Amino acid sequence: MNDTGQRFRGVMSPVLTPFNSDLTPSVPRFVKHCKWLIKQDVGLAIFGTNSEANSLSVAEKRSLLQALLDAGLQPSKMVPGTGTCALPDTIELTRHAVQAGCSGVLMLPPFYYKGVSDEGLFRSFARVIDSVSDDRLRIYLYHIPPVSQVPITLALIERLLKTFPKIIAGVKDSSGDWNNTAAMLREFQPQGFDVFAGTETILLKTMQGGGAGCITATGNVNPTAIVHLYKTWTSTDSESRQQALNATRAIFQKYPMIPAMKAAIAATSGDAVWGTVRPPLVELNGSEVTELVRELDVSGFSIPDAASLSGSAA
Amino acid sequence: MNDTGQRFRGVMSPVLTPFNSDLTPSVPRFVKHCKWLIKQDVGLAIFGTNSEANSLSVAEKRSLLQALLDAGLQPSKMVPGTGTCALPDTIELTRHAVQAGCSGVLMLPPFYYKGVSDEGLFRSFARVIDSVSDDRLRIYLYHIPPVSQVPITLALIERLLKTFPKIIAGVKDSSGDWNNTAAMLREFQPQGFDVFAGTETILLKTMQGGGAGCITATGNVNPTAIVHLYKTWTSTDSESRQQALNATRAIFQKYPMIPAMKAAIAATSGDAVWGTVRPPLVELNGSEVTELVRELDVSGFSIPDAASLSGSAA
Repeated sequence: MNDTGQRFRGVMSPVLTPFNSDLTPSVPRFVKHCKWLIKQDVGLAIFGTNSEANSLSVAEKRSLLQALLDAGLQPSKMVPGTGTCALPDTIELTRHAVQAGCSGVLMLPPFYYKGVSDEGLFRSFARVIDSVSDDRLRIYLYHIPPVSQVPITLALIERLLKTFPKIIAGVKDSSGDWNNTAAMLREFQPQGFDVFAGTETILLKTMQGGGAGCITATGNVNPTAIVHLYKTWTSTDSESRQQALNATRAIFQKYPMIPAMKAAIAATSGDAVWGTVRPPLVELNGSEVTELVRELDVSGFSIPDAASLSGSAA
Repeated sequence: MNDTGQRFRGVMSPVLTPFNSDLTPSVPRFVKHCKWLIKQDVGLAIFGTNSEANSLSVAEKRSLLQALLDAGLQPSKMVPGTGTCALPDTIELTRHAVQAGCSGVLMLPPFYYKGVSDEGLFRSFARVIDSVSDDRLRIYLYHIPPVSQVPITLALIERLLKTFPKIIAGVKDSSGDWNNTAAMLREFQPQGFDVFAGTETILLKTMQGGGAGCITATGNVNPTAIVHLYKTWTSTDSESRQQALNATRAIFQKYPMIPAMKAAIAATSGDAVWGTVRPPLVELNGSEVTELVRELDVSGFSIPDAASLSGSAA
C-alpha cells in the first residue's frame, strides 16, 4: 500500500510482437516499436494477449525482454505478461521480470482448465508469489474472460489483496463489462489497487471513477491521442476526444485486431514484414488491407511517425 | 494410409501425473502407474487433459517421457500429448516424441486465442509437420471444445487428411457430441483415419461404427473392464457391460474427475501423496473422499491391484 507513488500509471500497451517471415520474433523491430511507444509516453505491457504472447515460448519471452534491457530501455516502464497455463512457466517468467527490475507483471490465471474454483486460482497465485519470494514483486491481475474463459472474480481479488496487500498491485479489466470495472473501482481502488481499463473506450469513465489508466491494444497504433486524453481527462472537451478514440478503435475492430494493427503498421511504415502473424492467427488479405487503410485515411487517422517503425536495421 | 496395421488401437488412457507434496512430478509413481497400465493392456496417452499436462512445463514433459524410456517402457505404446498454445513448444515436444519412437502424438490445437479460423489452425498444424519433418510422425488430432474452446472441425480434418494423408492418423473426439463422432466415423475412418472415442461411455457405439477404440480418463482406474469391452464388443452381453462401465464413470463424475481419480488411487493404494494435484486444481476434501470411496464400494468397483501403485520407491 505504501509504494503506490512508484507504480506506473497512465497508458500501457500490450506491445505487438513483430515476426520475421520465418515466424521468428524480429528483435530489432520489437526494440524499435518499444522505443517508439516510450517516446509516446506509453508503458510497455509486453507479452499481453495482443502481443501474441501465448504463441511464444518461455525462452522467446525471456530473450525479447533481455533485448529491451540490452537496448537500454527502462524496466520501470515495463509490465510483462507472465501468466501461463503451467505453474513452473509462470514462476520462471515472473522471477525473470522481477529480477530484471520490471515495474510489475501482468498475470493471467492458468487458463487451460475451465470451471476451476477461486480456491484453486488463489493457490496458483499464492504459489507463484511464494516461489518468486521477492519483495519487489508487483502483480497486476489480468481479467479477460472472453479469451481466457477463466475469470478473476471480485471475491478472489479481495482474498488476494488481504493476503498479499503489498504485492497485489492492480488489475487489467478486459471483461467488457463496465459494471465489473465500476465494482473494482469502488471496492478496491481506494485500497491502492490500481484499476486499468482493458480498452481506451472506457478510459474517461475509468479516470472519473478514480482509476489508474488503461492497458490497450490500440496503444500500439494510436498512442498520442490516448495518452492525451489520459493526461487531460478533466478538461471540458474530454468527452468528444473519447468519442474520437472510440471511432478509431472501431475501424480496427472491424477486423481481427492483431492482424489489423500489424497491417496498418506495415502499410504506413512501408515495411511489409510487419504484417506477419504467427499461427493460429492469419494476416489480413490484400483487399482487407486496402479497405482498412482507406477507412483510416477517410477518418483522418494516421500512425504518428510510422516511418520510424520500419525495417530490421537496429 | 499404408501403415495402419502398425498403429495403436484399443484403449488408451491420458495418464494421471502423480505429484509429490511439493508439487514436483513424482517420477517413480508415474513410472509405476504407466507399467500398471501397460500390464492392463492400456496404451499411454501421457500428457493429456487428465494428466494435468497443461500445468506442466516443456522440460517437465520431456523428462517424464525420458523416465519412461529409461525404465524400459515401449514407445510403441505411447501417444504423448504435444499440442500447446505456442508453436515452438508444440514443435519441440512433437520432435522429442517422434525421435523417442512414440507411436504417435495427440495434438491439441493452439488454444489461447479464440474464434480463430480453420485456415489459421491448418497453418499451425502444417507448420508443426513441416518443422518436425520426420516420416515417422503420426498425429492424432485432439478435439475437446468444452475445454480447449477451439474446435477441430470436420472441414479442417478433411483438409489436413488431404494434405498430409500419411501423417494425420486419427482423432480423439471429446466433444461429447455423438453426432460429431458418428460423422467422423462415417467420413474419415474408411480412409484409415482412426477415430477414438474420448470417453468409454460411447466405446461400444464407436466400435460398432468402425472406430479404433477410446482414449479415456477412467482408464486410469477402471482399465480391466474397459479393455475387456474393447476386446469383446461383438459378444452378446456387451451392452450390459457398457452400462456397467457407465455406472462406474458416473460415480467419478460426481466430482472433478482428476482429483477424484487421484483420491481413489490414494485411498485404495494407501499412498496419500497420490491425492496431490497441481493448482488450479484442488484435491477432494476429507468428506468427499469418504463419500467417493463408499460409493465405489457399494457399486462393487475396485481398482485392480491398487497396492502396486503405492509409494515412491522405484
